[in-house]
Amino acid sequence: MSYKVGIVGAGFAGITLAQELAGASRIEVELIDRRNHHLFQPLLYQVAMAGLNPSDIAIPIRKLFAKVKNVQVLLGEVKDVNISKKQVCMDGQWRRYDKLVLACGAKHDYFGNSQWEPLAPGLKTIEQATEIRRRVLTAFEMAEKCEDDKEREAYLRFCVVGGGPTGVELAGAIREMATVTLKEDYKQADLSKTEVFLIEAGDRVLASFHPNSSKQAEKSLEELGVTVLKGEPARNLSVDGLEVGNQKIDARTTLWAAGVKPSSLVNCMQVSQHSSGRVKIEKDLSVPGHPDVFCLGDMAYLENDTGEGLPGMAPVALQQGKHLAKNLKADLEGRDRQPFHYFDKGQMATIGRSRAVAETAGRQFSGLPAWLAWVFIHVLYLLRFRNKMFVLMQWIWGYFSFGRGARLIVQKKWRFYGGEDIQYLGSENESNNEKQA
Amino acid sequence: MSYKVGIVGAGFAGITLAQELAGASRIEVELIDRRNHHLFQPLLYQVAMAGLNPSDIAIPIRKLFAKVKNVQVLLGEVKDVNISKKQVCMDGQWRRYDKLVLACGAKHDYFGNSQWEPLAPGLKTIEQATEIRRRVLTAFEMAEKCEDDKEREAYLRFCVVGGGPTGVELAGAIREMATVTLKEDYKQADLSKTEVFLIEAGDRVLASFHPNSSKQAEKSLEELGVTVLKGEPARNLSVDGLEVGNQKIDARTTLWAAGVKPSSLVNCMQVSQHSSGRVKIEKDLSVPGHPDVFCLGDMAYLENDTGEGLPGMAPVALQQGKHLAKNLKADLEGRDRQPFHYFDKGQMATIGRSRAVAETAGRQFSGLPAWLAWVFIHVLYLLRFRNKMFVLMQWIWGYFSFGRGARLIVQKKWRFYGGEDIQYLGSENESNNEKQA
Repeated sequence: MSYKVGIVGAGFAGITLAQELAGASRIEVELIDRRNHHLFQPLLYQVAMAGLNPSDIAIPIRKLFAKVKNVQVLLGEVKDVNISKKQVCMDGQWRRYDKLVLACGAKHDYFGNSQWEPLAPGLKTIEQATEIRRRVLTAFEMAEKCEDDKEREAYLRFCVVGGGPTGVELAGAIREMATVTLKEDYKQADLSKTEVFLIEAGDRVLASFHPNSSKQAEKSLEELGVTVLKGEPARNLSVDGLEVGNQKIDARTTLWAAGVKPSSLVNCMQVSQHSSGRVKIEKDLSVPGHPDVFCLGDMAYLENDTGEGLPGMAPVALQQGKHLAKNLKADLEGRDRQPFHYFDKGQMATIGRSRAVAETAGRQFSGLPAWLAWVFIHVLYLLRFRNKMFVLMQWIWGYFSFGRGARLIVQKKWRFYGGEDIQYLGSENESNNEKQA
Repeated sequence: MSYKVGIVGAGFAGITLAQELAGASRIEVELIDRRNHHLFQPLLYQVAMAGLNPSDIAIPIRKLFAKVKNVQVLLGEVKDVNISKKQVCMDGQWRRYDKLVLACGAKHDYFGNSQWEPLAPGLKTIEQATEIRRRVLTAFEMAEKCEDDKEREAYLRFCVVGGGPTGVELAGAIREMATVTLKEDYKQADLSKTEVFLIEAGDRVLASFHPNSSKQAEKSLEELGVTVLKGEPARNLSVDGLEVGNQKIDARTTLWAAGVKPSSLVNCMQVSQHSSGRVKIEKDLSVPGHPDVFCLGDMAYLENDTGEGLPGMAPVALQQGKHLAKNLKADLEGRDRQPFHYFDKGQMATIGRSRAVAETAGRQFSGLPAWLAWVFIHVLYLLRFRNKMFVLMQWIWGYFSFGRGARLIVQKKWRFYGGEDIQYLGSENESNNEKQA
């Protein structure tokens, strides 16, 4: 007997599972992703904040499995799935597997206001990160050449919606970038006047952390000059800003870090979903009623032993990937599958240079120790040595020079082909390689 | 008396001029560029070939002049110019100067076939470089999942049009990337079968070099497995390839390195142009009849002492920038302007790892010495220490590991906002910061 295992999604869950199955006898793996790179998402905000290059945290999937014979990497988009037949439809073609693993992650949720998406980009992909970078740096440029005081203030005012780790990290980094890194580069605009609003609908930031950590994070944010607004959701987003409570914030730049929902692939699955939209799964990580179909990571909903839903975090995905590899091998050898238990090592969030909060084993700590722990753990987990080395170097460099290495405003598509008067490239059809894609 | 100097374009000419004028008394400089970065174009092909990150060769202009009081950096697009009034129109607003310097560079010329531009992107901007990188890497991915032999071959066939330094560098790098760097990553497609055609309408590659260098370059290209086609122009470009002579090349990917023309700003100027479209200038670098308007670099046409037109190369632009600074200071002090003389230090082109041709002071050399000279000179000229260090490290790393650090396929605009089903972002109007731009 042998298995053909199909894995959709090369995030933390999919990559880990494929790595654990690498070299396993009687197992053939197809790993499908619509990107050619695995993204180290915990550091994505550093790309958005011009501290890192995209390629520092994006690892070619193919490279990871270059020497692995039983893992095939496919670049393609899965748009439909039939879990009864264990099939997925990639680029119009159905592919069948013995074991099907769906690990497609999550995307941003605008809570029914999808018209806000262009106004306030989220941070899930490299493209979104460079778009956020473009908007933030462009806002400073606009402030520099703006002659109206009120308008300049609006360009120097930023809203970040959502007080989770990403929102906290973005808000802190914008203030820090404006007041430390870029300050002296601008001669007309006074970047020290940059205002950053962090808008959290709940009653504290970092709601998944201990209240002590939330308090510490709010204190650090205020020290950095971020205004934290709690208890009211953002309303009426427009190009001119947004409303919170009875306050109107006139800001030209808004970023979204408020909510996530699982990949739209769940809508093709006809399975029972948690209120978050995530697929409810069994303890062995399979989809109820479909013992050979599995769902992992941010796409899946599973409760821990105390009845709380597991958070959509990298460690959960990593551990699930590892665990499923064991269960698949157990299947092959006729042994019983084991239930998944999440081992919670703790969590951490960073708020600018040398500020962070972390908690592990019931204890909270903050400040420089937390920040150093954060640096250490993130570098440790960056998969390849090459990436580790470069990220560490850029950080060390940035720490001492207060510089930002990747301050690039990359223009949008209409300038892809360079001429100043060429804007005809909106259509996908004109692109060469995509013709038969 | 004091001068307000306006410089349009922060390429080699504009940046050098502004640097030479930095700190000069009684001179105020406004440096305008539509990008926030100065681009080190001689290394741009390395970004296209996934060897370098965009930010390694793109330097924030503002950073260069952060500590310089008399240089203002403006991010904006100049779309019109009135040389009689010494005015330029930036983002709809006219700005007047005492001395106006136009150094807007060149863009690709498709010789009247502008419909070829989307089929065969050129290499002048960061966006074009990442687009070329996307196309080349995507072609390998398509070959990997393609099931038809003929189609797979077409995906593994690349045409590079134009045998100047850029074309030679691109053609060599594609073959090398396919047969050395990426070879083992692909399991279905045999990348050693990658074919690269370099199409040169003239009778030799590197036409501006000595014939010995051309011969050496052609030899090196052939050793790498590149097919050099000479004496016939490319015709009938389409998504399926192109025609040369009576040969039809069925290639999915074509790159353009064939010709350049000056920025379209020359069309607003009503001045005498050379047949290349470049503005004919006086020996003091001014535009004939307009002693306070200057034109530098790739936009300008000037002959050297033996009557040959100066090439559109970085050293010419650099020297002109330096020279004009002297002439402007002479004006201010009531001294005579000096005529510009180009000091030709030589030229070089690289063809993959450890192959290159170079010539200086009438002598040609090639192979490893030329390649080492090329590395040394290019790192030397990269403006900031930071960039030097990182480029050098990536090269050293790449040389020993045969790796490519920046193998990122960045998706095009329709995925900028991340959702798999979101494609509504074609319109510029929806973008936040651009509303009042």
